Amino acid sequence: MTRIRFQQSLDELKEKLLVMAGMAEQAIQRSVEAYRTRDLTICDLVDHGELAINRLEREVDQMALDLLAMEQPMAVDLRFILAVIKINADIERVGDSAQSISDRVRALIELPIAEMPIDIPRMASLAEAMVRRALQAFIEADASVAESVLSMDDTVDRLNQAAYFTLLNVMKTQPDVAPQALSALVISRTLERVADHATNIAEDVIFWVRGADVRHHSLISESHQP
Amino acid sequence: MTRIRFQQSLDELKEKLLVMAGMAEQAIQRSVEAYRTRDLTICDLVDHGELAINRLEREVDQMALDLLAMEQPMAVDLRFILAVIKINADIERVGDSAQSISDRVRALIELPIAEMPIDIPRMASLAEAMVRRALQAFIEADASVAESVLSMDDTVDRLNQAAYFTLLNVMKTQPDVAPQALSALVISRTLERVADHATNIAEDVIFWVRGADVRHHSLISESHQP
Repeated sequence: MTRIRFQQSLDELKEKLLVMAGMAEQAIQRSVEAYRTRDLTICDLVDHGELAINRLEREVDQMALDLLAMEQPMAVDLRFILAVIKINADIERVGDSAQSISDRVRALIELPIAEMPIDIPRMASLAEAMVRRALQAFIEADASVAESVLSMDDTVDRLNQAAYFTLLNVMKTQPDVAPQALSALVISRTLERVADHATNIAEDVIFWVRGADVRHHSLISESHQP
Repeated sequence: MTRIRFQQSLDELKEKLLVMAGMAEQAIQRSVEAYRTRDLTICDLVDHGELAINRLEREVDQMALDLLAMEQPMAVDLRFILAVIKINADIERVGDSAQSISDRVRALIELPIAEMPIDIPRMASLAEAMVRRALQAFIEADASVAESVLSMDDTVDRLNQAAYFTLLNVMKTQPDVAPQALSALVISRTLERVADHATNIAEDVIFWVRGADVRHHSLISESHQP
């Protein structure tokens, strides 16, 4: 494989990872839309998407493995490929999170409607924004963008904490809607996990970019900067 | 680096991962012991252990990266190193789970004692057994042991489901102890996540052993079997 072919393969690997990330992000959006509208057909979409995400995860891993096996990548490319392998695992788990919200929505639809005084869509859009920004940091090989993701995580943690106490209060004062409150709480915690995955992705980007910066500054600007 | 030196380095990598895994397992045991005995000093031990686990995670990643960078590992060794990198991430998250149980115990200790009709220690020992067996599969490069971990996961899922409905009922009928019930529920879900990490580890072992089996059967029995 020539250097140019190898570079093309790295770009393809990145491309595939980003397609998968877009699907995972959409899955979260859909699962929260299903929560908001109590729409089972959207749950079905999430479930189908999950299968596709899992398939892509395996393809990305295999591509990464093949590139490592066939080539002797330089340190900078090696760190890039390892970052892809780690980010891949986190994106797949964002997909799992969407699936678990969708499962919860299916259970909720069986119960009477009970408005909960917490803002799930807001938490979701923050968590999605974190995933998006972590991927932007990845695309642009920009550690400072990745760092901004880490600070956003505190906001999501705070919202999740606040949701916990709000819903606990609902359970104490209106025990008849405890099941609905508990489901809202599980969804809130799941979104907090999505934010954790975004944080992990951001940390992997920092590991990759910083390592590359320190060791091979000229190479990285040549091969991975946009 | 000679082949023998390289083999020694792989063994050291494996050794370090196993030390870390032992610490993560102990952290889960301790966090559940803290829950059982309401003992803050055990929570402190978990918190200290968490720092050590995070340090080891970085060391394992760096060792793996160095081995990939300095050598041109054959496919079988490559798959092994990639499995280590993936297992490493899951073990670190088992440590995180212990930390989050410990945080929950700290909150619980502030509240009056309320016995909950679920068996947290039993769930914990099942989840720990899964982690231990997944690592045994890794040590012995045995895909069938890894597969037995996957079926154990169903039991933990069932226990977690049952705990959910039991604790929901507590919240409905005794709203005054809703905070304690909710904490128990969060701990139950956290243990279910530990089981998920064990499952991920088992899947990585299968990926490594099967791939190795198919591609380089004679090499693997020479280099990675105990």
